[in-house]
Amino acid sequence: MTTAVIPSPARKSFRSDNHAGVHPAVMAAIAEANSGDAIAYGADPWTARATAELKRRTGATGEAYLVLNGSGANILGLGLLLGRHEAVICAESAHINTDECGAAERILGTKLLTVPAPNGKLTPELIAQRLAGRGDEHFAQPAVVCVTQATELGTCYSLAELGKVHDFCAANGLRVYMDGARLANAAAHLGCTLAELAEHADVLSFGGTKNGALGVEAIVVMREQDTASALYLRKQHMQLVSKMRFLGAQIDALLTDDLWLRNAGHANAMARRLADGLATIPGVDVVYPVESDAVFARLDKRHISALQRDWMFHVWDEPSGVVRWMTAFDTPEAAVDEFLSDITAVVAGY
Amino acid sequence: MTTAVIPSPARKSFRSDNHAGVHPAVMAAIAEANSGDAIAYGADPWTARATAELKRRTGATGEAYLVLNGSGANILGLGLLLGRHEAVICAESAHINTDECGAAERILGTKLLTVPAPNGKLTPELIAQRLAGRGDEHFAQPAVVCVTQATELGTCYSLAELGKVHDFCAANGLRVYMDGARLANAAAHLGCTLAELAEHADVLSFGGTKNGALGVEAIVVMREQDTASALYLRKQHMQLVSKMRFLGAQIDALLTDDLWLRNAGHANAMARRLADGLATIPGVDVVYPVESDAVFARLDKRHISALQRDWMFHVWDEPSGVVRWMTAFDTPEAAVDEFLSDITAVVAGY
Amino acid sequence: MTTAVIPSPARKSFRSDNHAGVHPAVMAAIAEANSGDAIAYGADPWTARATAELKRRTGATGEAYLVLNGSGANILGLGLLLGRHEAVICAESAHINTDECGAAERILGTKLLTVPAPNGKLTPELIAQRLAGRGDEHFAQPAVVCVTQATELGTCYSLAELGKVHDFCAANGLRVYMDGARLANAAAHLGCTLAELAEHADVLSFGGTKNGALGVEAIVVMREQDTASALYLRKQHMQLVSKMRFLGAQIDALLTDDLWLRNAGHANAMARRLADGLATIPGVDVVYPVESDAVFARLDKRHISALQRDWMFHVWDEPSGVVRWMTAFDTPEAAVDEFLSDITAVVAGY
Amino acid sequence: MTTAVIPSPARKSFRSDNHAGVHPAVMAAIAEANSGDAIAYGADPWTARATAELKRRTGATGEAYLVLNGSGANILGLGLLLGRHEAVICAESAHINTDECGAAERILGTKLLTVPAPNGKLTPELIAQRLAGRGDEHFAQPAVVCVTQATELGTCYSLAELGKVHDFCAANGLRVYMDGARLANAAAHLGCTLAELAEHADVLSFGGTKNGALGVEAIVVMREQDTASALYLRKQHMQLVSKMRFLGAQIDALLTDDLWLRNAGHANAMARRLADGLATIPGVDVVYPVESDAVFARLDKRHISALQRDWMFHVWDEPSGVVRWMTAFDTPEAAVDEFLSDITAVVAGY
Repeated sequence: MTTAVIPSPARKSFRSDNHAGVHPAVMAAIAEANSGDAIAYGADPWTARATAELKRRTGATGEAYLVLNGSGANILGLGLLLGRHEAVICAESAHINTDECGAAERILGTKLLTVPAPNGKLTPELIAQRLAGRGDEHFAQPAVVCVTQATELGTCYSLAELGKVHDFCAANGLRVYMDGARLANAAAHLGCTLAELAEHADVLSFGGTKNGALGVEAIVVMREQDTASALYLRKQHMQLVSKMRFLGAQIDALLTDDLWLRNAGHANAMARRLADGLATIPGVDVVYPVESDAVFARLDKRHISALQRDWMFHVWDEPSGVVRWMTAFDTPEAAVDEFLSDITAVVAGY
Repeated sequence: MTTAVIPSPARKSFRSDNHAGVHPAVMAAIAEANSGDAIAYGADPWTARATAELKRRTGATGEAYLVLNGSGANILGLGLLLGRHEAVICAESAHINTDECGAAERILGTKLLTVPAPNGKLTPELIAQRLAGRGDEHFAQPAVVCVTQATELGTCYSLAELGKVHDFCAANGLRVYMDGARLANAAAHLGCTLAELAEHADVLSFGGTKNGALGVEAIVVMREQDTASALYLRKQHMQLVSKMRFLGAQIDALLTDDLWLRNAGHANAMARRLADGLATIPGVDVVYPVESDAVFARLDKRHISALQRDWMFHVWDEPSGVVRWMTAFDTPEAAVDEFLSDITAVVAGY
Repeated sequence: MTTAVIPSPARKSFRSDNHAGVHPAVMAAIAEANSGDAIAYGADPWTARATAELKRRTGATGEAYLVLNGSGANILGLGLLLGRHEAVICAESAHINTDECGAAERILGTKLLTVPAPNGKLTPELIAQRLAGRGDEHFAQPAVVCVTQATELGTCYSLAELGKVHDFCAANGLRVYMDGARLANAAAHLGCTLAELAEHADVLSFGGTKNGALGVEAIVVMREQDTASALYLRKQHMQLVSKMRFLGAQIDALLTDDLWLRNAGHANAMARRLADGLATIPGVDVVYPVESDAVFARLDKRHISALQRDWMFHVWDEPSGVVRWMTAFDTPEAAVDEFLSDITAVVAGY
Repeated sequence: MTTAVIPSPARKSFRSDNHAGVHPAVMAAIAEANSGDAIAYGADPWTARATAELKRRTGATGEAYLVLNGSGANILGLGLLLGRHEAVICAESAHINTDECGAAERILGTKLLTVPAPNGKLTPELIAQRLAGRGDEHFAQPAVVCVTQATELGTCYSLAELGKVHDFCAANGLRVYMDGARLANAAAHLGCTLAELAEHADVLSFGGTKNGALGVEAIVVMREQDTASALYLRKQHMQLVSKMRFLGAQIDALLTDDLWLRNAGHANAMARRLADGLATIPGVDVVYPVESDAVFARLDKRHISALQRDWMFHVWDEPSGVVRWMTAFDTPEAAVDEFLSDITAVVAGY
């Protein structure tokens, strides 16, 4: 938690989509919601509108719940589907496994049954590998499959791939939780509706924070019967806020005029632009399909160091020299082009 | 979570200090922080400034951490002081016991050893009642005493009372956690500094949300040695946010020019004004000392119903006819006076 | 855990029914089960017989599970009935609240909603007191009522009293867990069958340890639909043993020729004999109805100290001078008479 | 939990060392301890003797605690060394990862950071692979390394190997927990003392159940400062028994005249005898070094099925045709020879 400084404040960060600020329309909605009193804890019109609209767009007949961040969404979403003795099958690269400080284990007491998944995507075959101990009391019982859409590796499940996972799960008594911290990017990439994604999940999250919000995520429970403990778990998980209207207003703003989709589409386009530019630079290999707002590339470690002097980004895998370059809703074309030009220069320089 | 409507939107809610919106200066600070990129998860200048200032004002040599809401603050604060086998002594009326859906039990696995506390305040004698099973493996071991300042009943511990509790705890191997969701109101009432309050705690929270923020609380750990697990527990508890700068900016704004103290002082003054007005109304009894932003009053149940037609407030105890009337940083004098006038009319009307 | 010495090894302990050893028939059954190999973890004939017999005698259509001790039984039994967000209503004197080191909170994450219960017994009226927060997300939701039969205070619910509690629970969406660590003593006192007790519970425990076993308790789940997680939770709770046949053999022995009932009947009779004797001693007041194997009495503190020089027993409540005298399946009549004679002498001596 | 039948009761089971019964000397000690009253919960002479002797033999200056089974030992032992936010590094094959139904995650809330470990043994290099996220709040913090001695694959760490792991851990701020469910087998194989094994651990378990006991394991805490929460966690984990003397008596019996070592030595010798015999049978490959009481062998799947008609054993890995054959303290030489003769016949028969 040391206070770092972005190498050059004039330069756009490629480190994370959460280095970006808040979209002006979202900020305006927050300010607008600040008018007089509102009932606390979600009984306000902004929240009502946001959750109704989420249900409408996903086709959920259950309920939608606003929470504070991605881990809050994931742990609540999983918690709705898991008995105390049950386990989650997920990709090794899943956020719940790699980036949440063991919250799934600590807060839900669940075991994560991980699978090495190429491109971060599970398949029926991969899931089947972790079903061996079913019915044996010595093994935590797999009950939920967690798919991340878009994945941590910047890839997207196609609708057909999601359908196969979902069908396999339904046929095998498994529930599907979809970690949608970047669901907007997946929808933009696939050109599909939220409902087309949501129909392959029992519970899903819809991420606002990485998509231009100040800080809000939603959990959508597709069917009524899975909602019974939701309000209580949200509170126990410390995800219930008193001034909920300001979460509602953020989702409202994102859903208005499809801002969520335009933001995600822009971020995706910038990642695409970056990847296209890289294709012409020798010595830089893009290692995963670029299907959302992330570009993973392998390059010479000396080049990585050189670039980090001026640009902020994350070294994904030190030993193999793989970096992650992320775009955001507000990444300017010019920043991508300037970055590409610097990469070209640095690579040529050695 | 049904969407209720404030009886008359023109009328100020007396139901909770969290029905109020965000103070304009806080909102401005949020907007101002929305300039370009910032490193996520707290390594930004706003958060650095906010936490440094909290440490300075409380005299903490440990660290300060921003979290998302009151339960998030309480559970993190307690978690820093509790071993897995240890229990918390608190007043029956403590927020952790009555309003957090069992989060302390569920998230920390701790047992709350409650004490009926007159006016919501613990004393060495009351604490001593729950120390009987120490050293006996059949009993959860009391390790932390939770004091709430201001209390859930609107009262405040005097500095001398806090000192006695603290001394007793220190002498008995107990740590002190101070739930300061309304610490500002206590400071305003007592006319003391944050440091004078904080010196009687090992860990304390400083509430922003009820004091004009959009949604932020801080945990202040007084001594370095208690900070070891703080960053990790905050993350596990789903209280770490990516765009932390917007939490930092809120605390910054509250601490600038003592806005926190002015906001609390105003809310307290409005509660005082209300209580003073009630003193002249027969049939309405104020049941606890009015020392912060809450007035608890007992009145005829028919009068309660009549008032609820036009005013929003909480019936604290149905059987005994006790209501809670809360003010906020933005409660106008005129609203108090109008409310008093309605109370007078209603009481006279029967 | 200091190694204490029974004041005089020749004198029967009145401190606890678990100071007694193992009934010879139980020990013989253990020895007999030690013949060659047996499949581990319960797939052995002894366990099959024990659980089948428990089901038959309780009328359960669900399943019976053997566990290792009373806390193991209680936590498993409650765990089968509780969602993560749900709470347990119990008497303040309930073992889960007073003697299990917070295991319910720590292992199940549940909140205990306690009620001061005269004679340790809950009633619909007492239970109703803790139902106020239902449906409000700020409160842990009461879902299970824990009745202890016989209670920690040596009293028994009559079948009618149990029926009222059960009816109330059924009508209010609450499940009933019966802590039967001393269920045998209750059956002996009431002269009823296990089925007549069990029909008022959803899940119950049947205690062996205090009734002449070496160490075994059973959980009986009355209906199939509540068994889904039982095997897994038992394992997670570390209550599954490999050489299960030796638990099965103990229950077998207790159920053979109603040894369980004869053991309990004897212990109850010895408590009765003690209480009857006390009735003639001035200055010793029996404070609860004597309906199982415990006698609670109030006497002068100097007399307590004097008696403790020669006899082992528990001072239940120091300030009020209440002691607990417990009998066991092996308490000789002569020991009761000798104890009575010493009490008489001590009381007379001051 | 279906009641299976050993193929032929006349034939010794090779399925698990816990199919065996209780050694006669242990059974005699249990019977002998059944004389009159004893103080409950461990304050009895048998427990005092057992724990003192365990401390003496391991060189522990901390304390020893008796528990009920292997999972109970592991979870308690790990719990003593782990903060709430901390994780355990272990081999993928570790019992805590593969056979305890997620108890570590559920009861301790900890994350297991697993490593594929050849022969089931960790090395400094393997451990180092899981240290990448230290100091980063997004990752559960590795704090404890769990070594299993003997391993789940029947292998043993040499004292030098243990020393290297321990030194690496000490140098890297990691604590060592040694799962000693089969510690006796390791001592017998290595020809070393318990102290020579224990000095490489901070906390270790000493398994009795697989070594001829009815059901008892011990946790030995090497240093006083790690004992503070032990009594309470044991109780919360439902591992405290009232009639503790019968656990103490079992450990007493095992430690008397080195019965533990003779039992383990015999089991090891029988595994050795089996492995030696297999060496002469074509088509049967022993896949791990035979260093305790287990033989892992690969053979034709039709041969596996044929052998299972008459013999009980565990198919370790279905796809690769690897079986586990375990011996026990009571496996007769004749049974090994008969089994070998059947294997020879079956293999020749196809």
